[in-house]
Amino acid sequence: MNIVDLITKKKLGQELTGEEISFFVDGAANKTIPDYQLAAMLMAIRLVGMNARETTDLTVAMLRSGDVADLSAIPGIKVDKHSTGGVGDTTTLVLAPLVACCGVPVAKMSGRGLGHTGGTLDKLESIPGMSVELTAERFVQQVKEIGVAVIGQTGRLAPADKTLYALRDVTSTVDSLPLIASSIMSKKLASGADAIVLDVKTGSGAIMQTLEGSVALGRAMVEIGRLAGKPVVALVTGMAQPLGTHVGNALEVKDAIEVLSGKTKGDLLEVSLLLGSHMLRLAGRVNTAEEGRRELEKALRSGAGLEKLRQLIAAQGGDPRVCDDVSLLPQPAVRVPVRCGVSGYVQRMDTTALGLAAQAMGAGRQRKTDVLDYSVGFILPVRIGDRVSPDTLLCELWACSGEEAARAEQAIRAAVTIGGEPVQRPPLCYEIIE
Amino acid sequence: MNIVDLITKKKLGQELTGEEISFFVDGAANKTIPDYQLAAMLMAIRLVGMNARETTDLTVAMLRSGDVADLSAIPGIKVDKHSTGGVGDTTTLVLAPLVACCGVPVAKMSGRGLGHTGGTLDKLESIPGMSVELTAERFVQQVKEIGVAVIGQTGRLAPADKTLYALRDVTSTVDSLPLIASSIMSKKLASGADAIVLDVKTGSGAIMQTLEGSVALGRAMVEIGRLAGKPVVALVTGMAQPLGTHVGNALEVKDAIEVLSGKTKGDLLEVSLLLGSHMLRLAGRVNTAEEGRRELEKALRSGAGLEKLRQLIAAQGGDPRVCDDVSLLPQPAVRVPVRCGVSGYVQRMDTTALGLAAQAMGAGRQRKTDVLDYSVGFILPVRIGDRVSPDTLLCELWACSGEEAARAEQAIRAAVTIGGEPVQRPPLCYEIIE
Repeated sequence: MNIVDLITKKKLGQELTGEEISFFVDGAANKTIPDYQLAAMLMAIRLVGMNARETTDLTVAMLRSGDVADLSAIPGIKVDKHSTGGVGDTTTLVLAPLVACCGVPVAKMSGRGLGHTGGTLDKLESIPGMSVELTAERFVQQVKEIGVAVIGQTGRLAPADKTLYALRDVTSTVDSLPLIASSIMSKKLASGADAIVLDVKTGSGAIMQTLEGSVALGRAMVEIGRLAGKPVVALVTGMAQPLGTHVGNALEVKDAIEVLSGKTKGDLLEVSLLLGSHMLRLAGRVNTAEEGRRELEKALRSGAGLEKLRQLIAAQGGDPRVCDDVSLLPQPAVRVPVRCGVSGYVQRMDTTALGLAAQAMGAGRQRKTDVLDYSVGFILPVRIGDRVSPDTLLCELWACSGEEAARAEQAIRAAVTIGGEPVQRPPLCYEIIE
Repeated sequence: MNIVDLITKKKLGQELTGEEISFFVDGAANKTIPDYQLAAMLMAIRLVGMNARETTDLTVAMLRSGDVADLSAIPGIKVDKHSTGGVGDTTTLVLAPLVACCGVPVAKMSGRGLGHTGGTLDKLESIPGMSVELTAERFVQQVKEIGVAVIGQTGRLAPADKTLYALRDVTSTVDSLPLIASSIMSKKLASGADAIVLDVKTGSGAIMQTLEGSVALGRAMVEIGRLAGKPVVALVTGMAQPLGTHVGNALEVKDAIEVLSGKTKGDLLEVSLLLGSHMLRLAGRVNTAEEGRRELEKALRSGAGLEKLRQLIAAQGGDPRVCDDVSLLPQPAVRVPVRCGVSGYVQRMDTTALGLAAQAMGAGRQRKTDVLDYSVGFILPVRIGDRVSPDTLLCELWACSGEEAARAEQAIRAAVTIGGEPVQRPPLCYEIIE
């Protein structure tokens, strides 16, 4: 088999066989195909597309390029959850403790922030002492002991995806449905879960900004799950604005603690309950999502969820007292409140721009080697549809300096549109694909 | 400027500015843009396309990436000729001497064989002693002295094209109209000619196999010439079958000598006269192509053309006696006549397959480092439209062994379709684009 012939086939709009896709993926994993040929193939896939069968073959080939995590020592049905990435999107920190409280084991491998989106690992590392690097044995042991662990990827999971992902980032081939779907699903299938709940974001802060694109991505991933023999449900949820009111690493931990302590209601809690309820359902713990929601609400009201978060933090070396006193989390040099300055309705947000504003403040990496400032970010209490007056708080900036705060203020003002016409609040969940 | 942003623009179907194209081309020439990003851009260009303005900017940027040959020491208007590549296509060896006889200087830089197509340099090197590597000074001096020189590229002409061409070959991005047009035209403009006659092949042995594609390529190159301020004429000529009856290196030299000595008429002579007549016209030597043809025919009939070829060969160190005795050219180990074996009409030829058959015999390179066997190839006297009987000679194989001959016979039989229905002879020239 010859990679040039395979590039030619794809370029001409033809379907690649499973064998051909394996040849390409193995060549990426073993570095036997040079980067320039991988790049040409990725661009051909980006522009020509792949059908469901090819996308599944691509996923399975990437999965098989490495190891599969062995969670068999953990009793029960293990359900993983994955978000396609958002801003203020910290559902894992809310739902992992709640789901664990309901007796369903949560053995979660998470990722780091990428571009304008935050990452659970970075948020957890903002908690003093907290480690996200456990051995595979320690990981399994912790889930058996306290029902929950959240760590970075262990072992050699989907190495072909690692090569292709790095190349996609620098060749403008990230925004390809088959490439996104196979990248996510190969890693999720490699993480060893029995079932998967996918949170596919849609709107101005999502990788797929249109509802149509998001639904297509969700369908593609559910179809891969079906063909790979794993139950998968995809929920298409709103990312027209940050999900929680807090954006930044320590800030999002604070947001999650305040949700679990019952102080904060709102979209972050709602989406966490929604995703968690489907996790309980796929785990066989409840029969319907509604029933699951009631169980999760019980764990929230009783304080069991917050207690589980304390256990999780303590088990991974962190200071559990942050759950009672969020001021123990990293604090910024300056806190600057910003008022709306005008009257009207919050009509639109450029959520990607909001995420990039937090990144620029130091909450995210512009280069892989950048060191994060866990304390920075902003609280954005306004929501699309809110009526505001000049005095209404638009945001509170947590910054490392006054200059940084001024820059962020400018970016956030530009990203939030306030106008005279009232607008509807956007839906939280658009579609459930199963 | 950032190459990823430029790849994104092209991928989304947007037009690149001249500045952006220069950034890409300079990055290719200076190796400051890695191959994988060049490859992604090439595939995006292949699949999305480029308009005339972008194609011209690409050509000019590649031209400017290196030197331009200085032919100013040669008096008169220098006209270059370029073929997009064919099989048995040895017009340069016929027309260069004839045009030079008419008082128009021919300072020609030629190429080597590529894929299924032959190359003038390889053919010339089959002549004992002949060198195609002259210094720039010697090249100019020879043209001043005898009116003609045919050599390989000198200096650093269009180095960006060199990088991109090598990458296109291994990323399946050769068959892109803007990339072909800009590659040819950047080299032709860099070769220092005042005007250019392009021979754009069409049919089963051409880079553009459809007439539509060939005409589009011709138009694109003429348009580049117009925008670059150089007179360019493109003739779309037939490559539904080998142009001459001889395919192979020494064999094509033999064919050219027999044409110049008046022994052989036919398509090779006709197309050479056609291209040559337009060279004389663009050089201002004659007013019409018809007049040019009459001048060239005079040089042919008088024997001046063959004498000029003798001078050319002698000037570049070759043995000019081959012009009088073609058996002094490299001779093969075996000569095997192959009969048609059936009655009917020659209906079609897969000319690319015929070229590849000659390549496989040793007449062309499969890898850059392959050493050629100048003596091998075949004579194919039959033409599309010919009525044949079982005894008619299909071809005479010139091979290094009986086994090689048997393999070539099989390939040639498969490439030539003989059937019951008579067919029209294909046209020699489809369109003249100016």
